[in-house]
Amino acid sequence: MGEELKGFIFDLDGTIYLSERLIPGADWVIRLLRHRGAKVVFLSNKALQTRENYAEKLTRLGIPTEPAEVINSSFVMVRYLTKRAPEATVFAVGEVPFIEELLRAGFVISEDPDRIEWVIASFDRTFDYRKLCIAYEALKRGARFVATNPDRTCPIEGGELPDCAGVIAHLEAVTLRKVEAIVGKPSPLTIEAILEVMDLPANECLLVGDRIETDIRMGREAGMKTALVMSGVTDEQTLKASPYQPDYVWPSIAELPGIL
Amino acid sequence: MGEELKGFIFDLDGTIYLSERLIPGADWVIRLLRHRGAKVVFLSNKALQTRENYAEKLTRLGIPTEPAEVINSSFVMVRYLTKRAPEATVFAVGEVPFIEELLRAGFVISEDPDRIEWVIASFDRTFDYRKLCIAYEALKRGARFVATNPDRTCPIEGGELPDCAGVIAHLEAVTLRKVEAIVGKPSPLTIEAILEVMDLPANECLLVGDRIETDIRMGREAGMKTALVMSGVTDEQTLKASPYQPDYVWPSIAELPGIL
Repeated sequence: MGEELKGFIFDLDGTIYLSERLIPGADWVIRLLRHRGAKVVFLSNKALQTRENYAEKLTRLGIPTEPAEVINSSFVMVRYLTKRAPEATVFAVGEVPFIEELLRAGFVISEDPDRIEWVIASFDRTFDYRKLCIAYEALKRGARFVATNPDRTCPIEGGELPDCAGVIAHLEAVTLRKVEAIVGKPSPLTIEAILEVMDLPANECLLVGDRIETDIRMGREAGMKTALVMSGVTDEQTLKASPYQPDYVWPSIAELPGIL
Repeated sequence: MGEELKGFIFDLDGTIYLSERLIPGADWVIRLLRHRGAKVVFLSNKALQTRENYAEKLTRLGIPTEPAEVINSSFVMVRYLTKRAPEATVFAVGEVPFIEELLRAGFVISEDPDRIEWVIASFDRTFDYRKLCIAYEALKRGARFVATNPDRTCPIEGGELPDCAGVIAHLEAVTLRKVEAIVGKPSPLTIEAILEVMDLPANECLLVGDRIETDIRMGREAGMKTALVMSGVTDEQTLKASPYQPDYVWPSIAELPGIL
């Protein structure tokens, strides 16, 4: 088995770290994999920060990482739009780092419903009625409608925050439009981005994550090997009840070397 | 027919007025009905203003009206909560006049999710992420979940604004809870409030409105006579396609005296 695996994809929250605390062994496992010449990529559904921010955080926590080794839903969205509508005029219900990422990628940001060609729903702790009205008016005039991630909530230290699913539902309810694409996990669009960055066939990759419905489901659907870690949100009961069974189940990432 | 009808219920927007303009003849028709001793009540799904505000507007437009002759969804909500949970601690996703109405009715307003017993979703042009988080946390802790009206949008001069349906959808999506009651039209709770204010049996009342799915539907379900006016949002095609056929169809309220 070990010889087949050349690429390793790691979810972040609950797999590599919990808030600011590294999962014990994570740094050592990544070092080992890199030492053996494996490709390593980190994966997050959050569009709150840029790839640079995630790379900095990982580096700070003891896993030296380049931005090119991080894939998050804002990166997948930029990649998605760049292929379909380069330099389009967009309006993002989202936070400043995401909007800056769109600007850097050459998109025009507008709050004028007559000019907006794409409305992008995202996790937005600055969501308000003004943004809702801009998105509503643009969608009414026929703008395309996409979203970064399908998550209902985002886990934080001691709780959860309302995430992108609420923004999508709000816009769908008032416009009677349906979101056309949600690019983050478990979408095939994220798989596509991973495999392009990896430059490896799916069956030579192992996806390690703590969420069955996103991580394990997506890995299986892509034809990757999958490992579920119990250091995050999933408990034994959820695992047993799920139709998406992983190849491996580990208490944490520290068990990974056992299969090499 | 005329002798049977002792109560007349009028929708406001699109039936009595359009924004600040009275539908021609509305003032005269109301005067005639009152002169003949009929009971008249005005009905709105908007929770943006109090009964006093609506009475003032009608009076200003030439139809002298008392607050007790107006029923809107914030009034029905106050009535609903007063029966079920007098003096409860509530949090309203709503605007200031609605919150003042709740205070006047003896409810305690709180932003502390640990104390909130009822979350009330409403039309709110001051909706933001902070309110969303308070409602989310309260609902997660088991607060009851109700809403003033099911409208997707609210018609305004030259367009529409996102209305209460978006707030409900947002909260449902992030909490996985379902709203327990929506008290405004076409809910039986609004019928109940109307009949109590009217103090008449339903079959002696005529409901006049411009929306089939709310006004006509509710009137029919309550056992009232119904009249659709074409001076608002409904066109011939919508009327033909609807399962809720009114007893009368008029170009406007000005035709009403024809059945007296």
